[in-house]
Amino acid sequence: MKKALVLASTLAFTAGYTASASAETLQTRWADIQVETLSEGLNHPWGIAFLSNGRMLVTERAGHMRIVESDGNKGDPIEGLPEIKVMRQGGLMDVKLSPDYENDQIIYFSYSEPESEGSEITSTAVAKARLQDNTLHDLEVIFSQYPKEQGGRHYGGRMIFSADGEYLFLGLGDRGDRQDDAQTLDNHTGKLIRIYPDGSVPEDNPFVGEEGAQPEIWSYGHRNIQGMDIQPDTGLMWAVEHGPQGGDEVNLPEAGKNYGWPVVTHGEQYGGGEVGIGFDKEGMELPVWHWTPSIAVSGMAFYDGNQFPAWQGNILATGLRGQNLARLEMDGDRVIHEEDMDLGQRIREVRIGPDGNIYLLTDHENGKILRLSPAE
Amino acid sequence: MKKALVLASTLAFTAGYTASASAETLQTRWADIQVETLSEGLNHPWGIAFLSNGRMLVTERAGHMRIVESDGNKGDPIEGLPEIKVMRQGGLMDVKLSPDYENDQIIYFSYSEPESEGSEITSTAVAKARLQDNTLHDLEVIFSQYPKEQGGRHYGGRMIFSADGEYLFLGLGDRGDRQDDAQTLDNHTGKLIRIYPDGSVPEDNPFVGEEGAQPEIWSYGHRNIQGMDIQPDTGLMWAVEHGPQGGDEVNLPEAGKNYGWPVVTHGEQYGGGEVGIGFDKEGMELPVWHWTPSIAVSGMAFYDGNQFPAWQGNILATGLRGQNLARLEMDGDRVIHEEDMDLGQRIREVRIGPDGNIYLLTDHENGKILRLSPAE
Repeated sequence: MKKALVLASTLAFTAGYTASASAETLQTRWADIQVETLSEGLNHPWGIAFLSNGRMLVTERAGHMRIVESDGNKGDPIEGLPEIKVMRQGGLMDVKLSPDYENDQIIYFSYSEPESEGSEITSTAVAKARLQDNTLHDLEVIFSQYPKEQGGRHYGGRMIFSADGEYLFLGLGDRGDRQDDAQTLDNHTGKLIRIYPDGSVPEDNPFVGEEGAQPEIWSYGHRNIQGMDIQPDTGLMWAVEHGPQGGDEVNLPEAGKNYGWPVVTHGEQYGGGEVGIGFDKEGMELPVWHWTPSIAVSGMAFYDGNQFPAWQGNILATGLRGQNLARLEMDGDRVIHEEDMDLGQRIREVRIGPDGNIYLLTDHENGKILRLSPAE
Repeated sequence: MKKALVLASTLAFTAGYTASASAETLQTRWADIQVETLSEGLNHPWGIAFLSNGRMLVTERAGHMRIVESDGNKGDPIEGLPEIKVMRQGGLMDVKLSPDYENDQIIYFSYSEPESEGSEITSTAVAKARLQDNTLHDLEVIFSQYPKEQGGRHYGGRMIFSADGEYLFLGLGDRGDRQDDAQTLDNHTGKLIRIYPDGSVPEDNPFVGEEGAQPEIWSYGHRNIQGMDIQPDTGLMWAVEHGPQGGDEVNLPEAGKNYGWPVVTHGEQYGGGEVGIGFDKEGMELPVWHWTPSIAVSGMAFYDGNQFPAWQGNILATGLRGQNLARLEMDGDRVIHEEDMDLGQRIREVRIGPDGNIYLLTDHENGKILRLSPAE
């Protein structure tokens, strides 16, 4: 059920989103939530990582990365980034800290990498670098999606470290016009990638040693993965991906498995018309959950803080088109309830802060960091 | 997502419910559905069973049972019913045909049975009888819920035969003011019952031989079960039950298990206030799905017809307060998607007809049989 003041509900627990001087209140089933704008003026912010003392490292798709102070003040753009092709959906995307960041100051970021200087032939790459004095040092590109491609769509780009910090997962997309590539293993299009943080390939990746297969592949048949997180209790990696028109998916991607795109989907072509052969097929995995119609699912996080005790272990997922925060109650690996909260802004990403509050990035030219905390 | 014309949606697939001369159209994600009023003037219809030649056997909570012809014409009340105490939520409830009805003409029905003539101390009973010449013959009460109780709430009353026709399941309620009884086995309050069609107790029922336990109990900790069906592929029995304020549940009740009421629930007391200890507890089962806020879930059916091929295997569930038909897409025993369709009327029950169409009963004094079929 969509929760927002603009929707007249015949049911008991209507929800509203009302403004006050300093913050707004979002009414939900279990708590009134205060929505504060912590920072604004970020150009399509895409990724956020929490540093010490309440500071945040934030990427803007427009090609900038900055530190935002705990009071929302934005630092100057960090220097030393590689060439990033900012074009349509492409640009600077996610950022994650090294699991040992306190000691090594290493960050990882994903971006649209051109084939050569100025080229519009691009793919998603991951680089690592040491962040010191607002500058990147010892920059190293540890992964480049193969093949590079014209057009500027479906880059994927979300990353997450495994629970033990040993592996880096990267979600990729089908680049819009290479759908069928998602079903073959000789490329990285429409794949989920698992590498070591230095870019090397774990020997137990499912297609290592298979002739012609790209060894970085963890799972395949994905359309455009833009949200990922690790489930607290299980340590399992989950991912959300955009469907076509309908069929946005939550998946629990397992090694070597096929998630069906573009053969099976709950969505349809934009403007109507079937995609693939239907909902399911032997040898292809059904999603754990799907949104149809699409919310254009972007980020996802498991709630594991102490500010919203009733939401422990829930999946929070965000929508661009849906302009929403969806909360999925879980029983192990199954969804048993959805609550849909309307934010009235395109939301790119959701992370849980060290303070247990929920942080959202809005996907606008004047993009914001929103902080959600229980209302007093 | 609520699908109805009255809800303004920002998403792509808005749904509408528009009237025409003879029928109305309900727009859903996968098909436009024609909603016809097949019959009306039924006083709170509660149960429906399909006879041959398109005829239907229909109960009215007000204490009548009639045959409705395929054109919607209502026959005279069937004679020979036992004394039924019509009071608040109590009255004549469900009706099912014997698995061998073609040969034996036996029907089973549930109703509010008074302790003695005219008494307001009642409980849910099940009777069987042979239906011939619009009259019940050889009437026999095969089950009476123990204990009987004042007040007229939470009778449960839904029945379903097992896939092989060998067992009859009956869902019961907590009678409103006997919540704690749902956790003890010395009574039938808040229980799901399994008996043979002659009323005798299967020796493999989970509490047979346990001292003080009622042997008819299949599972316990239920609040008010009013919808049940058998899953086509698995033959498993599923049930839906009313939560308090929030926490309407879909369960897959297994032998001997505890479904938590009133200790754990996703709902709260009417007017606010916690029920029980929270969402979950060791030894108690979580629901497969819950509706919070409540739709006041009433009937449920697995779709297994050929008129809505995209809905094969889906759970259809109806809401009284929600005035809706909820469609749950399943992957085995998990829900992977919900579509919520607004009917604008309190819906008591849903069954799939032999023609593959969907039949609904509306819960009003001028109650209707609605037939849902794909729009031309």
